Amino acid sequence: MSIVIVGSVAYDGVTTPAGKVDRMLGGACTYISLAASYFAPTKIVGVVGDDFAQQDIDFLASRGIGLEGLERVPGKTFFWAGSYSADMNDRETLTTDLNVFADFDPRLPADYRQAPYLVLGNIQPELQQSVRAQMKAPKLVGGDTMNFWINGFRTQLLSTIRQWDFLLINDSEARLLSGESNLKRAADKIRGMGPRMLVIKRGEFGATLFHDGGYFSVPGYLLDKLSDPTGAGDCFAGGFIGYLASQGVSLAGGVSEPRTLARAVVYGSVMGSFCCEQFGVDRFRTLTRDDIEARFAEFHQFTDF
Amino acid sequence: MSIVIVGSVAYDGVTTPAGKVDRMLGGACTYISLAASYFAPTKIVGVVGDDFAQQDIDFLASRGIGLEGLERVPGKTFFWAGSYSADMNDRETLTTDLNVFADFDPRLPADYRQAPYLVLGNIQPELQQSVRAQMKAPKLVGGDTMNFWINGFRTQLLSTIRQWDFLLINDSEARLLSGESNLKRAADKIRGMGPRMLVIKRGEFGATLFHDGGYFSVPGYLLDKLSDPTGAGDCFAGGFIGYLASQGVSLAGGVSEPRTLARAVVYGSVMGSFCCEQFGVDRFRTLTRDDIEARFAEFHQFTDF
Repeated sequence: MSIVIVGSVAYDGVTTPAGKVDRMLGGACTYISLAASYFAPTKIVGVVGDDFAQQDIDFLASRGIGLEGLERVPGKTFFWAGSYSADMNDRETLTTDLNVFADFDPRLPADYRQAPYLVLGNIQPELQQSVRAQMKAPKLVGGDTMNFWINGFRTQLLSTIRQWDFLLINDSEARLLSGESNLKRAADKIRGMGPRMLVIKRGEFGATLFHDGGYFSVPGYLLDKLSDPTGAGDCFAGGFIGYLASQGVSLAGGVSEPRTLARAVVYGSVMGSFCCEQFGVDRFRTLTRDDIEARFAEFHQFTDF
Repeated sequence: MSIVIVGSVAYDGVTTPAGKVDRMLGGACTYISLAASYFAPTKIVGVVGDDFAQQDIDFLASRGIGLEGLERVPGKTFFWAGSYSADMNDRETLTTDLNVFADFDPRLPADYRQAPYLVLGNIQPELQQSVRAQMKAPKLVGGDTMNFWINGFRTQLLSTIRQWDFLLINDSEARLLSGESNLKRAADKIRGMGPRMLVIKRGEFGATLFHDGGYFSVPGYLLDKLSDPTGAGDCFAGGFIGYLASQGVSLAGGVSEPRTLARAVVYGSVMGSFCCEQFGVDRFRTLTRDDIEARFAEFHQFTDF
């Protein structure tokens, strides 16, 4: 069942201890859709400038991603540049040129509006809400946010996530949003704000999903080589929603099968781990579904007891 | 099969966001032995001053802990005081009065020397080595160390851990000891230094064990209430070695059954999680083996997929 993904399509410049790339395809919407595309039909909504390269269009299309909602306007594509710390757990933003993304006003093509799954990348909460309003009757809606919106746009954010089924944030964002330092209490409080599924992304330490039936935690995958963590959280989101969509999961009928939700978290972790192995989206140029299943099996091996 | 545990027996003063206790029973040897005592016969080697309270002796004895090697000398018992950060992931040491612990020269009673399991708490590497030399033919030997010894006593430490079967340290200590930032490469390098089993303790994020057959990771247990993390790492060590001893594990015959090693890591995590629920050692005044098995089952519930 198909997934609509809304968010930034960008060019990134990234410096990590493993190397430096001045300009490459990036953006939350790009990463989420690439990861999700291995599991279910995926369509994106975004905006790029007239500098957006045909080879990048071709690459997204080669993954079967629907591009009808990718608007092309005069001007430059959103550009972000950042540099990572030695352990790659922190990063400093060096450049944020919003360019054509500054006026992003997402409009869903008519045939997107029937899609059962909607993922809202980390953008202005009011824009996220306007997209939700354009959908007919989705099975599952959710997305991402960040400290900037939690601090400065709290009212809009609360009104937005009230209509969501899932929210993906990190530990510190969960504590900030809830005002609770204890993660279980923070999760209870946030789930009370709307999203019945809350995923806490913990980077190299894994992820935890809180849902109606309890919680599930998976440790992080230990990479042989970490090249570039950019997009790992978005790829987690793509694997998570991708697997849920492939299983036709809905929350309408009550509690979902906890094992299905847990597996979605593991597929999210699998996709996040692959993302880090090469710069930008490069790992997805060669990654196969067999690679994904092999790593999923590895997660069983290193967590079973 | 019995376990000999060597290290500090102390009084602690602890301040956390959950409260403050000026003076209570503490010390690595105390925590390790209390946790291990639920799994196997446990004997300790330590030194205390003439201020050491009879009620603390009685409490350790009530857990069946052998105290023949607990020396009592004129002077004051080791006293440590510290204060934890708001999220309890960091702490500041306020007082370290070594007192009688400054001249600690561990001597094993004759009947300790035949014990099959030996755990060396975080003390001077040369003392750890002298204890190892007093043992006849232990099945498993290992312990803990810290940045202070890694930085300042590297040669002695390397000579000490060359004779160990297991080492328990945290992420940053593993990176410091190995000079590798990638955790898998760090683990390979450290396992090449002697200890074939390396446990990386990651606090609230769980733990990872590297062994001859691969690696195993468990996420952290989410506590309803975190009172005081003091001793959690030592309780992990106690649960880990306690379970291995209860199963008669040895590395002599080649690779141990990975599932047994994995379960030892989970029992370690269980004991660490209980430790944090109350101040100091208080949780062990009421904890039962049934509580432990119930939490072990919970680990299955929140990690199975």
